[in-house]
Amino acid sequence: MPIEITRRAYFCAAHRLHSPHLSEDENRETYGACNNPHGHGHNYCFDVTVMGEVDPKTGMLINLDVLDELIEREIIVPVDHHNLNVDVEIMRGVIPTMENMLMVFWKQLEPHMPANVSLKQVALRESEKNSAVYTGPRSVTG
Amino acid sequence: MPIEITRRAYFCAAHRLHSPHLSEDENRETYGACNNPHGHGHNYCFDVTVMGEVDPKTGMLINLDVLDELIEREIIVPVDHHNLNVDVEIMRGVIPTMENMLMVFWKQLEPHMPANVSLKQVALRESEKNSAVYTGPRSVTG
Amino acid sequence: MPIEITRRAYFCAAHRLHSPHLSEDENRETYGACNNPHGHGHNYCFDVTVMGEVDPKTGMLINLDVLDELIEREIIVPVDHHNLNVDVEIMRGVIPTMENMLMVFWKQLEPHMPANVSLKQVALRESEKNSAVYTGPRSVTG
Amino acid sequence: MPIEITRRAYFCAAHRLHSPHLSEDENRETYGACNNPHGHGHNYCFDVTVMGEVDPKTGMLINLDVLDELIEREIIVPVDHHNLNVDVEIMRGVIPTMENMLMVFWKQLEPHMPANVSLKQVALRESEKNSAVYTGPRSVTG
Amino acid sequence: MPIEITRRAYFCAAHRLHSPHLSEDENRETYGACNNPHGHGHNYCFDVTVMGEVDPKTGMLINLDVLDELIEREIIVPVDHHNLNVDVEIMRGVIPTMENMLMVFWKQLEPHMPANVSLKQVALRESEKNSAVYTGPRSVTG
Amino acid sequence: MPIEITRRAYFCAAHRLHSPHLSEDENRETYGACNNPHGHGHNYCFDVTVMGEVDPKTGMLINLDVLDELIEREIIVPVDHHNLNVDVEIMRGVIPTMENMLMVFWKQLEPHMPANVSLKQVALRESEKNSAVYTGPRSVTG
Repeated sequence: MPIEITRRAYFCAAHRLHSPHLSEDENRETYGACNNPHGHGHNYCFDVTVMGEVDPKTGMLINLDVLDELIEREIIVPVDHHNLNVDVEIMRGVIPTMENMLMVFWKQLEPHMPANVSLKQVALRESEKNSAVYTGPRSVTG
Repeated sequence: MPIEITRRAYFCAAHRLHSPHLSEDENRETYGACNNPHGHGHNYCFDVTVMGEVDPKTGMLINLDVLDELIEREIIVPVDHHNLNVDVEIMRGVIPTMENMLMVFWKQLEPHMPANVSLKQVALRESEKNSAVYTGPRSVTG
Repeated sequence: MPIEITRRAYFCAAHRLHSPHLSEDENRETYGACNNPHGHGHNYCFDVTVMGEVDPKTGMLINLDVLDELIEREIIVPVDHHNLNVDVEIMRGVIPTMENMLMVFWKQLEPHMPANVSLKQVALRESEKNSAVYTGPRSVTG
Repeated sequence: MPIEITRRAYFCAAHRLHSPHLSEDENRETYGACNNPHGHGHNYCFDVTVMGEVDPKTGMLINLDVLDELIEREIIVPVDHHNLNVDVEIMRGVIPTMENMLMVFWKQLEPHMPANVSLKQVALRESEKNSAVYTGPRSVTG
Repeated sequence: MPIEITRRAYFCAAHRLHSPHLSEDENRETYGACNNPHGHGHNYCFDVTVMGEVDPKTGMLINLDVLDELIEREIIVPVDHHNLNVDVEIMRGVIPTMENMLMVFWKQLEPHMPANVSLKQVALRESEKNSAVYTGPRSVTG
Repeated sequence: MPIEITRRAYFCAAHRLHSPHLSEDENRETYGACNNPHGHGHNYCFDVTVMGEVDPKTGMLINLDVLDELIEREIIVPVDHHNLNVDVEIMRGVIPTMENMLMVFWKQLEPHMPANVSLKQVALRESEKNSAVYTGPRSVTG
């Protein structure tokens, strides 16, 4: 479908990269400073892109207020001003890399998509230099 | 075709979201503050992406001056410092959502594309949080 | 006082530059495209800077939530998604240049400053290239 | 002195706003979400501004590599990828508000300023909307 | 593959657009000010995007430090603070347009991709208004 | 005077830092990679700030079109898409550091200031991390 709309949201959170499947030494080697024991944090920039047909009566693919409320409720409230390793229910047991966060966020958002639109991609920027994109559990025809 | 070039342009305009297919109450409910009677406005950021083959003699897909002049003449001059609901000929009868604006802009630009390049997408950002992308009336093989 | 805190807010609005003290021709010559009859608009970026002493008990000059609520109530609610020439009470009779807007916004904010802090400056950016700063009706000791 | 040079640096860190001089309830009321027990974090943008005379032999006020190394050694290495409340020696016993951070950073940098330049100000941006500036322990003639 | 990670890097360089396949007049006409004899320059923003499967043990598609070192060694060291027409070995004989630069950079990076990830695209921004994307020598299934 | 207006302009240029007052070795040591023989380049962001009284008839401190034309004619045309060491008349004999560029630009602009406004400062950003400000040959009362 040729039209896409993207809504952006921000949150800030603390995290530490540490895997239960790795030894202490492997954790340090794998994650470097991101493995520091007491964590660090980021201002995250999160973009949600949906696609679909434009309703000719309104000229809109989706009401951006609806999309914004959905992102706010499902993602921002749970993660903003929290520690992703400790007190965020939707991240329980998940190593808080951008890749894993995007897969969690997709699962949170996808079931609530309004009729007529599809979730196309979720994107996360954790710093000026690092960003990631996820287009769903499979994109078999893509 | 694996190479794409994007040229960015800016314009500022007033608009009001209001549909002739909806009642006054429906308009208010659908568009919220964007339905305020006397309008509001934005600084719009507009990106035009073309794709094609690079000319080995020049190392260029397209002369960016040519693309810039085209965007300036077909889009920026008609819309910049104007009211999209009132005095923009190419927007006559069109609800000025980002989605509709992109479909109008595509129609304005596509017939003027230089030989050897194709219009790939047009993108519009109306605020830090809201943006849209349009890839043409259909992208059957995409 | 050597510490300053700045809080940023955004709003979008329509406006038209037109002076009752000038003829139609003078208006066109003075304001150019900004004088177009049906208006245009901007995403405005508004920065409020306060200065004062840091409270050693809290480590804060001012609670940013308090400052944010003040800006929201006194400036953003009245102007956001409105037409500055028509339906904004605080701009009644004021030509909506950045300079005049800043003088109005100062008058709106200054009387509500919390004890212990002073309003230092208000700044407005109406486009990537144009911005303005106002430091109050006089700054005799500055 | 009429010439100033600013060098920017980035770091990311976790923090929690919590004052030992306040009760639990006062802490929650004062700092809101910033008081959440397990902390959150930011990408900080830090600007150091020095002033002085330009050396006519080099055309420079200061060698920016020297300034950059100083900022790196005195500020970025101690705080980057750390938790400001727990494992940053220079922040020991300091509530990590922007205001307090700037006063600590000034003390770290000022004694190491190269001859012929003076530290003019340090500035910190913790989010798109919040920033602070510090011009030193007093600026009596300023 | 539905996950992509992008790492950004910056460099600054001088260049002049001038083709040995064109006459002096054709060069001036084709490249305009970019053909000025003594060159000009840019701050380039370069984005490298890789795709693949996330390793469940680490939650990562690729270690960003590894990707960063690869970009630094293969691209930034050769081009940063250099003149692309004169003293950059990897650009020898190549007209330094964004299009050609991306094709060179792809060839530099692609053979060094770590196992399990594929280079998806390289993107270059040479100014606020001009950018380009390259997705490899062919994308037959894309 | 409490109102200031800033107009921004962009240019791109090549340069090399090299002082005739230093030996080859001293040049390399002083300027590092900026001394590379064939030069490099930047996208420069240039801000001109004027101050004065607002004309109550127009609500403007200065007509921004007038200021823009002045900057274009005196600064942008001479330097844009040029090599600051070789073919820019106003930079003849000047080492193209930000500091020196600002002093040259001030001299170019100051005599052309419209009546009723004063040039307050000129600012240059040559990269995300490096910027400079100049407030004139002396600011005795400032």
